[in-house]
Parts: sequence; structure tokens; C-alpha cells
Amino acid sequence: MSTFYDRFLSRKANTRSLLCVGLDPDPALQPEGYRTADTMVSYLLRIAEATSASAVAYKPNVAFFEAMGAAGWEAFGQLLRGLRQIAPEALIVADAKRGDLANTARFYARTFFETYDCDGLTVNPYMGMDSLAPYFEYRERGIFALCLTSNAGSIDFELHGSPPLFEVVASRMEEQNQKTGNVWMVAGATRAAEQLSRIRKAAPGVPFLVPGIGAQGGDLAAVLSVSGSGALVNASRSILYADPTGDSAAAAEKAALSLVNEMRALLPEL
Amino acid sequence: MSTFYDRFLSRKANTRSLLCVGLDPDPALQPEGYRTADTMVSYLLRIAEATSASAVAYKPNVAFFEAMGAAGWEAFGQLLRGLRQIAPEALIVADAKRGDLANTARFYARTFFETYDCDGLTVNPYMGMDSLAPYFEYRERGIFALCLTSNAGSIDFELHGSPPLFEVVASRMEEQNQKTGNVWMVAGATRAAEQLSRIRKAAPGVPFLVPGIGAQGGDLAAVLSVSGSGALVNASRSILYADPTGDSAAAAEKAALSLVNEMRALLPEL
Repeated sequence: MSTFYDRFLSRKANTRSLLCVGLDPDPALQPEGYRTADTMVSYLLRIAEATSASAVAYKPNVAFFEAMGAAGWEAFGQLLRGLRQIAPEALIVADAKRGDLANTARFYARTFFETYDCDGLTVNPYMGMDSLAPYFEYRERGIFALCLTSNAGSIDFELHGSPPLFEVVASRMEEQNQKTGNVWMVAGATRAAEQLSRIRKAAPGVPFLVPGIGAQGGDLAAVLSVSGSGALVNASRSILYADPTGDSAAAAEKAALSLVNEMRALLPEL
Repeated sequence: MSTFYDRFLSRKANTRSLLCVGLDPDPALQPEGYRTADTMVSYLLRIAEATSASAVAYKPNVAFFEAMGAAGWEAFGQLLRGLRQIAPEALIVADAKRGDLANTARFYARTFFETYDCDGLTVNPYMGMDSLAPYFEYRERGIFALCLTSNAGSIDFELHGSPPLFEVVASRMEEQNQKTGNVWMVAGATRAAEQLSRIRKAAPGVPFLVPGIGAQGGDLAAVLSVSGSGALVNASRSILYADPTGDSAAAAEKAALSLVNEMRALLPEL
């Protein structure tokens, strides 16, 4: 089985894109008629179809499914099966931000890599590297550790200390990646370029997953000037709900293409 | 509806105990015949029955259910309904360690407080206080923030900086608790008493949830000398699997009682 990173490289070459489409189906934002577990999935799959030529990866956020209980998890499974049909080469990253003692983390890894067979998973580093070890053992998957997130509150703990915590996390992820080659880091596009540069310096070999573009207003040029093309750039609401009351698929296709064109203009190597 | 903390006080008085029984059903440790989603629940409910006189709270860890997909979540729901019948006064804390942007955290809060109607939830503070705000809005529930965990790897990030991160987390939880009165902190029993004292000093009003007693070898006397009776003391495997191949319910009852007797000996006010 080829690794997540190899599949990323080949998908990136084929799509000339770094786009990750975040699938965060908030019932309050979904068009009428698409707010139950089943119909939510059919809406997301229409968006996936419309963006399949420009998306390197899809990143469903598990919270929106989990809130519906077992039916939501059935829907999550349905969504994954649909994505595999629509875009067999696209990578699927489960955005679940799990973290627990190693003993328990083994079960979260099993959930997302075995029960649901996702290609990647976001994880929370707070409890330390031993708590993440069970994920890293899945060498062919992509393990996305939170580093510096896009919300204002990231200042509370992620920036604590000198050097700031996020830089320490980045260094440890670099070390880990040298061992297992399957580490990514979540670094928000809303952060100052100076902070992103510190992450890059602490972890030169670890690619970025960059949320915060689109609805959250992050600066794509600043991000790409630091990350280069070793990154997945995520947009969720700005694609999913580009025109929720009109032709949402056409609007999503257009929004995705326009973001990809921006990327191509900024990174000639794409 | 009375608050989590009020219910804790009254349950503590009625049981003369601080015991929280962790329900972490690892299929590899479950007795033969109790390794599927359904049978796992019946095993846990037998243990709950056997410990209902000494448990203040039950703390199912969601990972073990989630690993089984939608069927596991059905089982989680079944377990909760069973616990309510067996011990209607006992508190139920979902151990899920969730954490995400506020926008998404709302859905995790909805999962555990609405879809599954748990009394408390463990959450991960890494992303900052704004990421936890949606949980704190549920004033009548107990919000358990990770602070200093019981694993060796907690040294990696939780101890980063001066003051160490866990102390900063504790201070922010104290502030939050003064506003909403529903905050608890997870502080591992395997930590040095000196570290627990620093947490207590930074957050004098926030009660502890203490894992690490039992199988992980934490020091109950050291913990209680710092926490006093404002704590839930968790034991999982040492009760659940006290005698998995023999009469597991009788062994669990005995193990729970013996731990409660230790607590009573150490805290005359119980």
C-alpha cells in the first residue's frame, strides 16, 4: 500500500492543486431538505462530485455526524463509501482531533483506520507523544497533529512559554516524522507569517494542513510563501455553502476552482 | 435541574465514597463471551450493579465503543440507559476528551449532553478557552478539562514552560469556574504531590477527577491529602477486571469496597 504522503504527491500532480475540502455539515447552514443524516450525506456527495477535479483531499469533521448518534455514524460510513466512488484517488482525512492515553488511543486509531478505513486523522497532542504513538504506528496513514490552530483562543495555551508550546510540538513532530514519515501538522492560515515560519523552521520536513482559508479569512499568499507546495489547504464553508439556496454544486465547483487558481498563481510549480 | 456539583455532593454523602468506576471495556481483557457490542454492555452493567452502593459516578470511555462503529454507539446508548436504571443517582461522565473550534465543539456538546444526556464530559484544553466555551454553557453539567494526566508523556507538553502549562490551564479553569460553577480538572494520581499542590493552589475552587489509582499505581493518600473530599477518584481495570475469569461481579464489588474503605480511612469526613 502506498503511503499517505506518496498518494498526496501523485494526487497533487494530477490535480495541480493543494485543496482539501472540509465537509462540516452544520444543519443550520445546510439547505432545506438536507438536514437529516441521510440527506446531509447526499448533499455532501453532490459537493464532492462538483469539486472532484480540484480536491486533493476531503476532510469530514466527525462532530457533525456524531451529534446524530448511531445514525450519524452510519451516515459517516455512507459518506466515506460515496467519496471512494466519486473520487477514488482523493485522500480522506477524518477530522476528529482525538487524544487519549495510548491504551485508549489504540481504539481511536482502530475506529478511523480499520472500522472506517480513512487515510488520515487529526489528533490532539496535549497529553504527549506517548499518547500519539498508536496512531503513528499506522505508517501508511497520515497523522495530523494540532500545532497552532486558527482560533483566537489559541493564544491561551498553544502560545504558552518560551519557546511557545506550538514550536515545541513542531519540533517533536519533526523528530517523529523522521522515524515514521507519516506526520502532518495543523497550522492555521489566520496566524502571522512569522509564526508559520517558526513552525517551518522547527519542523522543516513536516507538511502542513492549513485551515482558516475562506470563511475564517486567512491569508493564502502568506501561508504558501512559508509552506510552499508541501501543504493541504482546507476550505469548508466557503465551498460547501458558496450558494446554499441556489445551485450549490455549481457554486461549490466555482469556489473550489477559483481557490485552486489562486494557488496556481502563487505557486508556479503546481 | 440540580447541578452536577450538587448531585456530586449528595451522592457523596449517601455513598460515603469518592469512587468513579471507569468503564473501559477492552475486548482483549473482557471475559470470553463478552466481547461483542451487546455482550460488552451486559458485562459492564453487571459490574455497575455490583458497585452501585459504592460508586458516586461511572465514567465510560467512548473510544472503546466508537471503535465498533455505529453498533458501538448503539451499545453506548444501551449502557447509559442501563446505568440510569441500576443507579439513578449516580453521575455519568462520558470520557471522550473532545476538543475543536467553538463552532464544531457545539456539536460535540450536543452529542454528549443532548443526544446521549450524559451528566459530565471530559474535554481537551489544547486549543484554548474559546474552544471550550460551548461546553461551559451547559451550566448543569460537569465539564472535566484535562490538566495534568497520569501518563509518562505528560512531561512533553503539559509540563512545558515556567510556570508549566498545566498550572496555566488550572488558573484558567479557576476563572471559568467562578463564572459558570461547572468545571472539574483531570489530575493524575501518578503525579508527585508537589505538582498536585500547585494545581490546587492555582485552582482552589475546582474539584479534581483523579485517574491513575489501581492498575496505574497512583498514590491515593498523596492525592487525597491535596484534594480533600472535593474529588472523584477513578479506578477502571482494577475493578472491571478484578477477577475476569472467575466471579467478576463479586470481585468488582470487593475491589470497589476495599478502595472506598481506604478513602474513608484517609478522609474521616467521608
